[in-house]
Amino acid sequence: MPHINLGNDMPGIISLFQYRPETAGPLNELADFLLHKPNTLEPWERELIAAHVSGLNDCQFCTDAHAAFAAAQAPEGLDIDVIRANPGLSPISGKLKALLAIAGAVQQGGLHVTTELVDQARAAGAVDLEIHDTVLIAAAFCMINRYVDGLGTTMPDDPGVFAARAAMMAEARRSEAVSLRP
Amino acid sequence: MPHINLGNDMPGIISLFQYRPETAGPLNELADFLLHKPNTLEPWERELIAAHVSGLNDCQFCTDAHAAFAAAQAPEGLDIDVIRANPGLSPISGKLKALLAIAGAVQQGGLHVTTELVDQARAAGAVDLEIHDTVLIAAAFCMINRYVDGLGTTMPDDPGVFAARAAMMAEARRSEAVSLRP
Repeated sequence: MPHINLGNDMPGIISLFQYRPETAGPLNELADFLLHKPNTLEPWERELIAAHVSGLNDCQFCTDAHAAFAAAQAPEGLDIDVIRANPGLSPISGKLKALLAIAGAVQQGGLHVTTELVDQARAAGAVDLEIHDTVLIAAAFCMINRYVDGLGTTMPDDPGVFAARAAMMAEARRSEAVSLRP
Repeated sequence: MPHINLGNDMPGIISLFQYRPETAGPLNELADFLLHKPNTLEPWERELIAAHVSGLNDCQFCTDAHAAFAAAQAPEGLDIDVIRANPGLSPISGKLKALLAIAGAVQQGGLHVTTELVDQARAAGAVDLEIHDTVLIAAAFCMINRYVDGLGTTMPDDPGVFAARAAMMAEARRSEAVSLRP
């Protein structure tokens, strides 16, 4: 049960967005830009960073949601849970491994991001904007995870809801990409 | 020196806002609403929550800035650094002490916010919206602190700049309050 009366029965962040629309606006705008807008990091890579940080923060709602969103958009054959369990040993690019290492450092605290971690990401091909966006995605989920769990929000009754929503989102993006083709 | 080339010499969060205006928009809107807009929590109380969390996260830029903003707006005789050092023993209201305890739990992680902490805040007079806003302010500074330090931003050359800016902000608010009087 949530710690305060949210006035609705929605799960996780959705209940908080309904409770406080004044803060839902900028929070949604930030998350939408970081995760969905055109970027040299693929949407599934950014969702993976979000899921990885949420897992490190023990936030079940955000981990399940963003792992499902990553899985629905990732190349076939990639298992998001296997990657999250040990990014360094998983079959992803060296660049993504290095960015996940930076995200993991951000989760511990900003001062844990070292010159060495940034140099490794750059050596693996990451550009400054990708390093910036990785730090901000990781930092933003350190906020969202604390917001969701700090107010004791609930999980959905149906655990399949994240996969269903993820499939809808992925389909909508594919249609959008097709309609934008010249 | 920052970890990436930010293309400007501004300190702290200001350099990041200049580097990435697309995310500066929602971040500024969120912080402005949480810290400055009308609320049953006074602006100095909200700045104190921000400074307290930033101190726990070892973020010097945010701690110095928000401690100065709190000090410039707090009732005379309150020493923000003394309060931050030991909120429980300081001469602030029981409600604010309980809200700072919730903010401190959020800094550790969302699941650290217990029913007991929320009950104590309610018993001390806090209403649901105040508990909500305290959790979100604390969570938001867990993001901002990581963003500022995770990219290695710099401190201002002149440490007095925060107090000067705080005095200007406080004066602007006083003038605004006077001009709004019927």
